Amino acid sequence: MGGDYAPEIVVKGARLARVRYPDARFLFFGDEAKIAPLLKADAALSACSSIHHTDQAVTGDAKPSQVIRSGRQTSMWKAIEAVKNGEAAGVVSAGNTGALMAMAKLIMRPLPGIDRPAICGLFPTKLGETTMLDLGANAQCDARNLVEFAVMGECFARAILGVERPSVGLLNIGSEDAKGTDMLRQASQILRSSHLDMEFKGFIEGDDITKGTVDVVVTDGFTGNVALKTAEGTAKMFAAFLKNAIKSSILAQIGMLLAKPVIAQVVARTDPRRYNGALFVGLNGVVVKSHGGTDSIGFANAIGVAVDMIARDLNSKIAEQLAHIEAQEAVMAEAVSE
Amino acid sequence: MGGDYAPEIVVKGARLARVRYPDARFLFFGDEAKIAPLLKADAALSACSSIHHTDQAVTGDAKPSQVIRSGRQTSMWKAIEAVKNGEAAGVVSAGNTGALMAMAKLIMRPLPGIDRPAICGLFPTKLGETTMLDLGANAQCDARNLVEFAVMGECFARAILGVERPSVGLLNIGSEDAKGTDMLRQASQILRSSHLDMEFKGFIEGDDITKGTVDVVVTDGFTGNVALKTAEGTAKMFAAFLKNAIKSSILAQIGMLLAKPVIAQVVARTDPRRYNGALFVGLNGVVVKSHGGTDSIGFANAIGVAVDMIARDLNSKIAEQLAHIEAQEAVMAEAVSE
Repeated sequence: MGGDYAPEIVVKGARLARVRYPDARFLFFGDEAKIAPLLKADAALSACSSIHHTDQAVTGDAKPSQVIRSGRQTSMWKAIEAVKNGEAAGVVSAGNTGALMAMAKLIMRPLPGIDRPAICGLFPTKLGETTMLDLGANAQCDARNLVEFAVMGECFARAILGVERPSVGLLNIGSEDAKGTDMLRQASQILRSSHLDMEFKGFIEGDDITKGTVDVVVTDGFTGNVALKTAEGTAKMFAAFLKNAIKSSILAQIGMLLAKPVIAQVVARTDPRRYNGALFVGLNGVVVKSHGGTDSIGFANAIGVAVDMIARDLNSKIAEQLAHIEAQEAVMAEAVSE
Repeated sequence: MGGDYAPEIVVKGARLARVRYPDARFLFFGDEAKIAPLLKADAALSACSSIHHTDQAVTGDAKPSQVIRSGRQTSMWKAIEAVKNGEAAGVVSAGNTGALMAMAKLIMRPLPGIDRPAICGLFPTKLGETTMLDLGANAQCDARNLVEFAVMGECFARAILGVERPSVGLLNIGSEDAKGTDMLRQASQILRSSHLDMEFKGFIEGDDITKGTVDVVVTDGFTGNVALKTAEGTAKMFAAFLKNAIKSSILAQIGMLLAKPVIAQVVARTDPRRYNGALFVGLNGVVVKSHGGTDSIGFANAIGVAVDMIARDLNSKIAEQLAHIEAQEAVMAEAVSE
């Protein structure tokens, strides 16, 4: 069990999730001596939970290459293995992201046709919510990876945002066809020519993410991670500026008391805990990564993402879309060889 | 003369700048029939201005490769040439960014030792301001380009932020040495080993930009452009959420009247017009790019950046720092050949 405040927030998050999902069962992997007293405090949760003891945990700074060699006794490994063995339907972790992805790929294996599983999350926008991937699993990508991300993100948006025909955009530094990198132009070309049943909108720019221009923002893991953290940082800076400015004036403090209910709405709409729980898409199983620094409300939301994904048959939809691309690639290869 | 609202905001911006910089002279390149009536409205500005007529302008969608072949009669070309010929000390444009950079490189030439000039701008942070480059001139970079950006950005921060010893960070997706791309690890290695007199802080992440962790954020033009636009979009989304929420409640509207003066402070601190004016660093001359959609206040600020850079001897400081890197490269090359 990982993250900055484990196991407390993990068990507390499960307490909240149990109320929302009364049919869920919880398997806790970690130090029994620490988990058992926390579980005892909630008889209803205890009744649908089991503890799987191990005193080994993946540390926050462990290298993925190292934990996949020597991490078989860790709570993370055992939790993923439980999914692989059919004892659990999905895994939620607030631990080391790189280690979680490396172990999940090794134990669960990627879906057929998927070269690189990706991290997929939700963003608030002016119009509602958007999906973005990859948020950091793959720092270096090629055009084919981006095409796979587009397919997976579109299926995810359909399942989790409930959009019937999600629109998809490739994150670039201009919307014209000639802009950006070779990789992006090639990915755009494949997406346009592969007869996918997809609302592909071409290139979008950084400010389109929060404008809500598309339902799915596709990018490499480097750019996606920087964009995600830059947006988080900008939001925090604004909140800090407002807080400090209001503190400096009695009138403003009175004013803020009057505005409090509507400010609370804005805070709730953009609360990072609401968007906690990024899905690792492209794996033979459900793996959800919670932010390491979240609280029990955020962790409960991450469990919610896992429950949603388990309830929906995302992977078979992804396989169906990939078949279109592979058919198109075969046609192109044949055209070249003729 | 370019940008969305030229020539009106350009002339109006110059009116504001003239008051701030009484010694400045203004050369307007563009359609005399349009510029002359605007200039007439301000006798003081007219007295220190000249109009250089041409009816050709670079359009917003023109390709850089095309304008450098056939754009010799455009206002942009003539303005850059005026700097090259010593008739003007610097050029400010709200026109097509790619065309401006391509022409400036061709006419002014990059500084000796600089492979790729970059676009350098300012960002608000929790602690004050930070410099970021490249904001979009070079979508694809190598490690040596990033090292040059670090040197140029550090000199820029010293000149324009007035920081005696600016700290420099490489934008990455984690702060550990093994994170990110090969390019970033190599750039970090060169910066650490080249005995530069530079406060190099290693890798930083997206949220460090607005935290103010470093004075200079170094990144490739693709990532920098996405980060800049993502931050702008996030700020606009928050402003829109607040505005809509307040509109929905009479109490909140009264509250906002009381808080208005402090809200105005926050708005002023993060006003994009305040940060308008990105410098093209690494050229034999001063070129400042204004946002195409800015107003006269924003354009006046872009003129201010040009005046500041002309007043300081940025380029000789850049050359001095580059000499350290080249000396180190020579040592390394010798070590390899032995």
